[in-house]
Amino acid sequence: MNSLSVGLVQHRCTADREENLGRGAAGIRRAAEGGAQLAVLPELHGTPYFCQSEFVEHFDLAEPVPGPTTEWLGGLARQLRIAIVGSVFERRAPGIYHNTAVVIDRDGSLAGRYRKMHIPDDPSYYEKFYFTPGDLGFQPVQTSVGKLGVLVCWDQWYPEAARLMALAGAEMLIYPTAIGWDSEEKSGDERRRQLAAWLTIQQGHAVANGLPVVGVNRVGFESAQGGGDEGPGQIFWGNSFVAGPQGEILGMASNDREETLIVPVDGARTEAVRRIWPFFRDRRIDAYQDLLKRFID
Amino acid sequence: MNSLSVGLVQHRCTADREENLGRGAAGIRRAAEGGAQLAVLPELHGTPYFCQSEFVEHFDLAEPVPGPTTEWLGGLARQLRIAIVGSVFERRAPGIYHNTAVVIDRDGSLAGRYRKMHIPDDPSYYEKFYFTPGDLGFQPVQTSVGKLGVLVCWDQWYPEAARLMALAGAEMLIYPTAIGWDSEEKSGDERRRQLAAWLTIQQGHAVANGLPVVGVNRVGFESAQGGGDEGPGQIFWGNSFVAGPQGEILGMASNDREETLIVPVDGARTEAVRRIWPFFRDRRIDAYQDLLKRFID
Repeated sequence: MNSLSVGLVQHRCTADREENLGRGAAGIRRAAEGGAQLAVLPELHGTPYFCQSEFVEHFDLAEPVPGPTTEWLGGLARQLRIAIVGSVFERRAPGIYHNTAVVIDRDGSLAGRYRKMHIPDDPSYYEKFYFTPGDLGFQPVQTSVGKLGVLVCWDQWYPEAARLMALAGAEMLIYPTAIGWDSEEKSGDERRRQLAAWLTIQQGHAVANGLPVVGVNRVGFESAQGGGDEGPGQIFWGNSFVAGPQGEILGMASNDREETLIVPVDGARTEAVRRIWPFFRDRRIDAYQDLLKRFID
Repeated sequence: MNSLSVGLVQHRCTADREENLGRGAAGIRRAAEGGAQLAVLPELHGTPYFCQSEFVEHFDLAEPVPGPTTEWLGGLARQLRIAIVGSVFERRAPGIYHNTAVVIDRDGSLAGRYRKMHIPDDPSYYEKFYFTPGDLGFQPVQTSVGKLGVLVCWDQWYPEAARLMALAGAEMLIYPTAIGWDSEEKSGDERRRQLAAWLTIQQGHAVANGLPVVGVNRVGFESAQGGGDEGPGQIFWGNSFVAGPQGEILGMASNDREETLIVPVDGARTEAVRRIWPFFRDRRIDAYQDLLKRFID
């Protein structure tokens, strides 16, 4: 893997699409000015996190891929000569929508997409209502800056997803994310445990696969946006980060501010770690069949 | 899962088997006196870490299961009414040896065994010479204190092993371990990264599976014990620990001292975490087939 400077664009999102894209554009520009060859945006960065309620009108927020957001990202990428990982509420067909990460190469072309495979459905994260689970599998996207293992948010809790991307040759794992604390969760201990768990499991993917991992989260409070059964709102916890191939934190953003963090990732370090800890060599692929079961009972 | 108090018996090992077993017995006794219902010993706690060289005479250290070590453990378990996870260099047949964890119930009976599935072979860890990879798969052992997902050392780097134990109903993951720094590794940063990676990936298994994880390591310097191609010796790094189901550290031993650490684990907490983060529900078992491949190329 080549060395690569990554720009993490951590920003707030509101109901104003133009404002959201403006924040993203400003961050991508700062990343490019700071020497980043790749910029990563949070999950669904063009919209509020509308999944806090199940509300049919939110399907109006969806768009095709390619479509307005990928064209906008393509223009920025071409102008700034920077690759971009963005995120779109994709309308694929009537009644088939996906939570889709899009990968734009430095020439502005759409290099590939990833449709979120693991879909949550938990209080204030009613994603199963909106998103059909992805059917493209776990395929990294080849770009001029490397082969990128792009996954999305809830996927980050699944070692299987990270492993499959790594086995398919991903040189880096990248998670656009929208995760936060329920605003009614008042326990500082529980908030710390949740944040730490989110970091730990992704650092664990770095260790297990000997790969750098990038997570970019939105930040700030968002209330539910219409519809019934609304929750109390989410405090998106930021903490966008890059972990190196031993899970070590190479850079981390704050938990409450918009910022663009530029983190250099050393490709030679990845190769060195994979030589001292050659985990892929010893996988017991003859004994993993039951991973394809829901439960072993 | 019921709540359970676990005793982590972190000790040194030398070439003197009686001395090693004596250290183990003292620790198990302290654990029982402190109210632990389960004691866990380090990997291969009856012998020095003989895998630092490939030396045919070391096969003399092996023994059958059941055999002297399980009988000794059984006597302690029965006397102290404590379940024990121990570790044995198992001679199964001429030319077939395993690195085997043994699980003794509180009545002294051999409740089950686990034969290490992932076998390392790295400088000073020449385990492929000694140990045939396990052929019993990833099966938890039912005991009177719970269904224990016992794995061994190198397995701890494999999310697949943790997942398979959890899917088979393990209520806790337990790793007897022998891991340390190469004594010629002088970089404090590299030492810290290695130790942190070892902790992080196991905390990650806790998060991914919503389960407590116990790791018990040996401690102290051991030189190679005869044979050719000897390395400079290993500084086993201790840091035996228990992580809760969000990966949070519930207790941790020092990196340089023998000690018996008693850590209570709250079963209700495990159930609560598995309700707020129901990861098993959303696994894409329709899309995991390639986990059975060595590499996707």
